[in-house]
Amino acid sequence: MEVDYKNIKVIGFDADDTLWVNETYFREAEERFAELLEGYETKNKIDQELFKMEMQNLGRYGYGIKAFVLSMVESALELSNNKVSNSVIAKILDIGKEMIAQPVELLPGVESVLQKLQSKYRLIVLTKGDLLDQEQKLAKSGLQKYFHHVEVLSDKKEENYKNLLDHLQIKTSEFIMLGNSLKSDVLPIVKLGAQAVHIPFHTTWVHEMVSKEEQESNNYLTLDKIEDILSYLK
Amino acid sequence: MEVDYKNIKVIGFDADDTLWVNETYFREAEERFAELLEGYETKNKIDQELFKMEMQNLGRYGYGIKAFVLSMVESALELSNNKVSNSVIAKILDIGKEMIAQPVELLPGVESVLQKLQSKYRLIVLTKGDLLDQEQKLAKSGLQKYFHHVEVLSDKKEENYKNLLDHLQIKTSEFIMLGNSLKSDVLPIVKLGAQAVHIPFHTTWVHEMVSKEEQESNNYLTLDKIEDILSYLK
Repeated sequence: MEVDYKNIKVIGFDADDTLWVNETYFREAEERFAELLEGYETKNKIDQELFKMEMQNLGRYGYGIKAFVLSMVESALELSNNKVSNSVIAKILDIGKEMIAQPVELLPGVESVLQKLQSKYRLIVLTKGDLLDQEQKLAKSGLQKYFHHVEVLSDKKEENYKNLLDHLQIKTSEFIMLGNSLKSDVLPIVKLGAQAVHIPFHTTWVHEMVSKEEQESNNYLTLDKIEDILSYLK
Repeated sequence: MEVDYKNIKVIGFDADDTLWVNETYFREAEERFAELLEGYETKNKIDQELFKMEMQNLGRYGYGIKAFVLSMVESALELSNNKVSNSVIAKILDIGKEMIAQPVELLPGVESVLQKLQSKYRLIVLTKGDLLDQEQKLAKSGLQKYFHHVEVLSDKKEENYKNLLDHLQIKTSEFIMLGNSLKSDVLPIVKLGAQAVHIPFHTTWVHEMVSKEEQESNNYLTLDKIEDILSYLK
C-alpha cells in the first residue's frame, strides 16, 4: 500500500488490546466460569451458551465487564436449569470484581511510541465499553498525560466515528486510527475515508472477527507491533 | 438572588429527573426487590441493605441500571443468607431488563422550553450513569435534535465539570446548569463559579441528598418547574 502520511495530524488509539492487555482477562474469566459450571455441561457447550447470551444481551447491556457479569449470571441459571448454587452466583460476581480491580498491563512499546509521537501529533484514545471502567484503566495506566482527548464510545461503528470526528473537528484526511480489531478499529475507519492501522493482538473475541472477504479491502496497513508505526509517522 | 444572566451562552441540562422520569423507576424496582425477598427480612432492612450494597459497589460499578442490578443480586445472596432461589435471581435480572426497555417519559414543559431556548443558546446534556443506557434514552426521548453536545460523565463532581467545560471551551461566566440534584447538578457548578438552577423532582435518591448547611450557600436559583427558567433566560 502506498499512502502518504504527511497530512496526518491526529492519531486515534484503541485502548483494550492496543495499549494494554484486556481480552486475556475475559478469556481467563470464561475459563473460570466454565469450571464453575462443569457439572452441568461440557466446556464447549458452556462457552457457546455464554457467547450466545452475550450476543443476545449486547443491545441492552452493551460492552464491558458489568454486561459480561450479568450475562454470566443469566447463563449460569440457564445452563444449570435453575439448579446452580448461590455460592456459584457469588463466585461469578467475584470474577467480575476481580476483573475490574485488575492492574493495567501495558503492551510492549506503547509508552515509548506515545512519547515519540506526542510532540508532533494530537493523540486521542477512542475506546468502547464501560465508561467508568475505561476511565479507571486509563488512570491506572499512567498514559493519560499523552492524550489530548479520551472518548469512550458505546460502539465503534462508522457512524460513531463520524459523529466523533465531526464533533472534534478532525478531517478524515488528517486522521489515522490504530487498533487491534479489524471490525471496530480498522474497517469502519477505512469506510469513512480515513487511514487505519491494524496491529493484531494474539487473542480476538469471536464477536470482533471478520470474514476473509472483508479483510481483503486492503486499504489499511497491518503491523506486527506498535513500534513499527514509527517508520510511517515521524 | 440578583444575578445577571445576559452573559449566558451555554445551558447545560441534567437528564434523569430533569428532562425525563428516572428515579421513580428505581423506586419501583426497589419495591419489587423487597417483595421478592420479603420472606427473609423486613422491608426496611431490605431497603437499607440494598442501599449499603450500592454504596459499597459505587467505586467499582459506578451509576446506572447494570450497577444497580449487580448490587441487587449480591444483596439477595446476603439478605437470604445464600438461600435465595434461582427464580428470584432470574426475576432480579428481569427487573433490570425491564428498566432498560422502559419508554422515556418526558417531564412536563421540557420540550417547549428546549424549543424556545435552542435558537439563542447552545444547549448541552450533561448526565452521569451508563453510557449506552443514557444514549438510548436520549434517542428514545426525541430530544436529541435540540442539543449541540451530549456528554455522559462517570461522575458529576467539580472536577468532572471543570474538565468538560475546558474541553468544550466554555467559560464559567457563560455557563448555566439546570438539574434536579443539588449534589450533582448545582453545588459543584456553584463552586466552579458558574450559574446553577435547581429544579427539584418529587423523589430524590438518598445518595443525592445534601445537608441543610450545604443548601444554604444560596448562590443558585431554585425553580418549581422547568418552564420558569424562561423568565430568566430569554
